[in-house]
Amino acid sequence: MTSRPLCVLGLGLIGGSLARAAVAAGRTVWAATASESTAQAARADGYDVAASTDEALARARELDALVVLAMPLPAVPEVLRQVHTVAPRCRLTDVVSVKAAVRDAVERHAPDARYVGGHPMAGTAESGWAAGSTTLFGGANWVVAADDGTDPEVWADVAELAWDCGSRVVPAGAAEHDAAVARISHLPHLLAAVLASVAASPELGELPLTLAAGSFTDGTRVMDTRPELVLAMCEGNRPALLTAVDDALGRLGAARGSLASTGGLAATVNAGHRARQQWHAARSGPEVKVPRDTPMSRLRMLGRDGKLLVGWE
Amino acid sequence: MTSRPLCVLGLGLIGGSLARAAVAAGRTVWAATASESTAQAARADGYDVAASTDEALARARELDALVVLAMPLPAVPEVLRQVHTVAPRCRLTDVVSVKAAVRDAVERHAPDARYVGGHPMAGTAESGWAAGSTTLFGGANWVVAADDGTDPEVWADVAELAWDCGSRVVPAGAAEHDAAVARISHLPHLLAAVLASVAASPELGELPLTLAAGSFTDGTRVMDTRPELVLAMCEGNRPALLTAVDDALGRLGAARGSLASTGGLAATVNAGHRARQQWHAARSGPEVKVPRDTPMSRLRMLGRDGKLLVGWE
Repeated sequence: MTSRPLCVLGLGLIGGSLARAAVAAGRTVWAATASESTAQAARADGYDVAASTDEALARARELDALVVLAMPLPAVPEVLRQVHTVAPRCRLTDVVSVKAAVRDAVERHAPDARYVGGHPMAGTAESGWAAGSTTLFGGANWVVAADDGTDPEVWADVAELAWDCGSRVVPAGAAEHDAAVARISHLPHLLAAVLASVAASPELGELPLTLAAGSFTDGTRVMDTRPELVLAMCEGNRPALLTAVDDALGRLGAARGSLASTGGLAATVNAGHRARQQWHAARSGPEVKVPRDTPMSRLRMLGRDGKLLVGWE
Repeated sequence: MTSRPLCVLGLGLIGGSLARAAVAAGRTVWAATASESTAQAARADGYDVAASTDEALARARELDALVVLAMPLPAVPEVLRQVHTVAPRCRLTDVVSVKAAVRDAVERHAPDARYVGGHPMAGTAESGWAAGSTTLFGGANWVVAADDGTDPEVWADVAELAWDCGSRVVPAGAAEHDAAVARISHLPHLLAAVLASVAASPELGELPLTLAAGSFTDGTRVMDTRPELVLAMCEGNRPALLTAVDDALGRLGAARGSLASTGGLAATVNAGHRARQQWHAARSGPEVKVPRDTPMSRLRMLGRDGKLLVGWE
């Protein structure tokens, strides 16, 4: 396994945790951040932060490093223009929570980059350098985009980075990824927003929020996240999120109809219980190893089957 | 403060935790359960379990104990008929998650009982005697129904029981309570069921459930609960839950419309974030003490204002 140098652009929760984990794994790592206070904090913690994104990218070009875009989607295009200027053919990945939109931005702004999208499924409701940790990705599942035509060498670079951080790799096409995360990440944020707002509606005074316990607390926890991060994530996945919202509206409407007509909710609740049991089963694998030259179509099939890649055969 | 003896009917998670907490507070406590294996387990743990509900109720009549109904709503009417036969004028409360339905059942099946409804806002996704604990109610908010005409002496009995268990008392009318818990407890269960089912829908294979992380896990946690308990709770609060579901459908539909037309979700997400902040503020009180002879209408107003009662003035 190579230990390719790593250039992390962005030192928020995810980028900051990635820099920590890669250093802990023995990699050469440097970073850049648009925030001077973050740069100072990271340097104080012993990390190598370049004076500018251009300087970080120049070093990436010299050392043939893997460059990681670790900023919210709206900030991606400007950084890609810098990539195109300074290190146009660099090995490039990202940790943004949508994949088709980033791929499209790369094609537009940095068309020569050797880009393979990534998305580690890890996070907390907190944000910023101080919230990061070496272990954030331990045991997490890390999507590595496996569309036809993907550069297999960079695909391997990204998979090895994920493994270095303690994650398992899930291969998926960009569109499949976006449809999946709309269901398991973006829809939960919208439902949490709706639930919190229903509970806070004023006609019952403070009573509902006073009585709120476990089911409300868990169901709305992600609303502690800074709204601009939630918006960047959800709005960046608009078509797939619309499909997921329509599915949810249909199911909630069916539950409403059944409750109004027969008083029964068994179909809704039993399906939810079964789905949660399926999730428990899906969490643990199975873990597999694959040959280094596995074709992208085969990798995508492994992802759809719930396989978790943990290394090369 | 009196230390009135306590007769707990039902030894599941809530009844079992109540028996433990009341014993720990120094009360004389005995129980009854329809499950022979639960009775054996509770006796093995040192608790006093009567041979039958009738025997437990006979003792409650002799000692003027407070009787607690601690079983799911569908099992309540039969126990109330036993109350009416054995201890018709007993002091009676319950820990069921809806209040109007239990009150109606009491009026029908045990009309002479001195009934004051209660609902401790505590629980876990587990159930049964073994899942109970002495500390389940510590720091929880415990609704004590405060409709006009409520027996103030029994109201004080129930409030003192809640305080003995480490809870704060929230006074509320039965209908207000049911409307509030529809929003903060029953709707979260339905949204969790919908979310889990959307993620498990088969067109993307195992991929969504494989990628599911924090927001999905939290948003569906209550679907670990046994479906029959969720159904008893949600179906028992049908009119109020319909109102809450309609509110949620309206808000989710508005989010859908905004996402489709402008691509923006700021109104939805900002409202959810604000509501969650309101909830953080509501959790901590303010805690107040009240005179023992506070009228029911005044108690209800304190509940609507988010006051948490911690003792007598």
